[in-house]
Amino acid sequence: MELKSKNKLHGGELSFYQHLSKVNNCSMGFAVYLPPQAQTHQVPVLYFLSGLTCTEENFMIKSGAQKYAAEHGIALVTMDTSPRNLGIEGEDDSYDFGSGAGFYLNATAEPWAKNYQMYDYVVHELPEIIEQNFPIQTNSSSIFGHSMGGHGALTMALKNPGKYRSVSAFAPIVAPTQNDWGIKAFSGYLGEDRSQWEQYDTVELIKNTQNKMPLLIDQGTDDEFLEAYLKPELLVAACEANQHPLNLRMQQGYDHSYYFISSFIEDHLVYHAKYLKSD
Amino acid sequence: MELKSKNKLHGGELSFYQHLSKVNNCSMGFAVYLPPQAQTHQVPVLYFLSGLTCTEENFMIKSGAQKYAAEHGIALVTMDTSPRNLGIEGEDDSYDFGSGAGFYLNATAEPWAKNYQMYDYVVHELPEIIEQNFPIQTNSSSIFGHSMGGHGALTMALKNPGKYRSVSAFAPIVAPTQNDWGIKAFSGYLGEDRSQWEQYDTVELIKNTQNKMPLLIDQGTDDEFLEAYLKPELLVAACEANQHPLNLRMQQGYDHSYYFISSFIEDHLVYHAKYLKSD
Repeated sequence: MELKSKNKLHGGELSFYQHLSKVNNCSMGFAVYLPPQAQTHQVPVLYFLSGLTCTEENFMIKSGAQKYAAEHGIALVTMDTSPRNLGIEGEDDSYDFGSGAGFYLNATAEPWAKNYQMYDYVVHELPEIIEQNFPIQTNSSSIFGHSMGGHGALTMALKNPGKYRSVSAFAPIVAPTQNDWGIKAFSGYLGEDRSQWEQYDTVELIKNTQNKMPLLIDQGTDDEFLEAYLKPELLVAACEANQHPLNLRMQQGYDHSYYFISSFIEDHLVYHAKYLKSD
Repeated sequence: MELKSKNKLHGGELSFYQHLSKVNNCSMGFAVYLPPQAQTHQVPVLYFLSGLTCTEENFMIKSGAQKYAAEHGIALVTMDTSPRNLGIEGEDDSYDFGSGAGFYLNATAEPWAKNYQMYDYVVHELPEIIEQNFPIQTNSSSIFGHSMGGHGALTMALKNPGKYRSVSAFAPIVAPTQNDWGIKAFSGYLGEDRSQWEQYDTVELIKNTQNKMPLLIDQGTDDEFLEAYLKPELLVAACEANQHPLNLRMQQGYDHSYYFISSFIEDHLVYHAKYLKSD
């Protein structure tokens, strides 16, 4: 685990690391913000999953979340959105597949299966590393994300009852099996057997899960990807049909950018803090 | 004036523009954040001047200032730190001279004099454009900045009594005539006659001004440029000798980055709001 940089921020410490991931069989980057409370005791942890093209940096630079993490005594963890620089043919050909577009799944199709195991990385390997190396409470984790990372956070929370205390998302891809981003990614990483796709689709999971974890979602009404890719109405319908608790907040005039995230990040930190800090 | 992008942020609007600057004889970029209050009435304006290499973007993306600008009903304006892409020989040779390093002065030496008129641009031309095109109170402006931009803000406020209601800085270059950054820049832009340099040196200005505008300065103790370039002790000595009001806050463990700025940006917005919103 190589420390790349460390900065003091809102009384706490933000560190960027590079390490060899066992499940991804390659070097991966992640970042940890420890609030000032971590200097004296173990703190809960909140994982943030970024969207297409992002690295572990974007959220830490742009969201403004650390101020609220410091106020509430919560650690923040981000990770890169895929392996990079592996020399796999086509890995850098497009913004929505390969590098920067791991889609938080375990690839089964070649040539991706060896390295694109982002689901296991985020759900299992990275939390173990975090809990072993930082003053983190092992029984208090939550997860949230943006766009492709919103998809990741929602599916991981729904598929792992008890692992995360709460989940939320900004402009998530709720039905990747029903839009061009998801169809391209799932075809490439999972192959053409669509029965393998549903395990990574929030709307499909909602139809089949007994896990009634409430969902908090913010979605900008001026999001340039709203109609073609994000389709929150599909999630609304699935939640209504299955009596799944959903708080979808349509935010007037906001787009898909980190400016949108930063405008509502305080609400999300307050929301997660309520779960993370309860006994 | 060409609108490059617009995003909703904390209830207000952040816009990036490109325009033809008369004083710089070239295209320049600037950004304006209008708080929600600007939808119904004119608001005060706070100018932020960035440091070496930055554009009008860095502060708007990284500082988190818009949240507090929205709370207090203050517009924020940033501008690029120099002209760019002019084809001047050597303009892109180093990070601390030419592009991204205008040093907020009016160049008199060739080949810079025609375009590097950042002092007049920030003090005169840009405020006129802002006041003509946005719902801005013409009698309520303040200014602050970081590093090279802290130098710019302090010198502009000291040289223009009554123009700015308040001034503050993060890790400012307070004595450019006494460090390598400033000596390189002033030699190149102003020539070797050192008598021309003092008009752009905060410590020198403090010795000679009757303008007793108070200075609020935050400086990280772990700033990598502290000893060789920033030298706040020179400002402390000059202020003590001339009974100039200075609130220098040495912030334990903070460095020179925007993480440092974002940690104390709320304090600066609150400070300026007090002046900007008084009658």
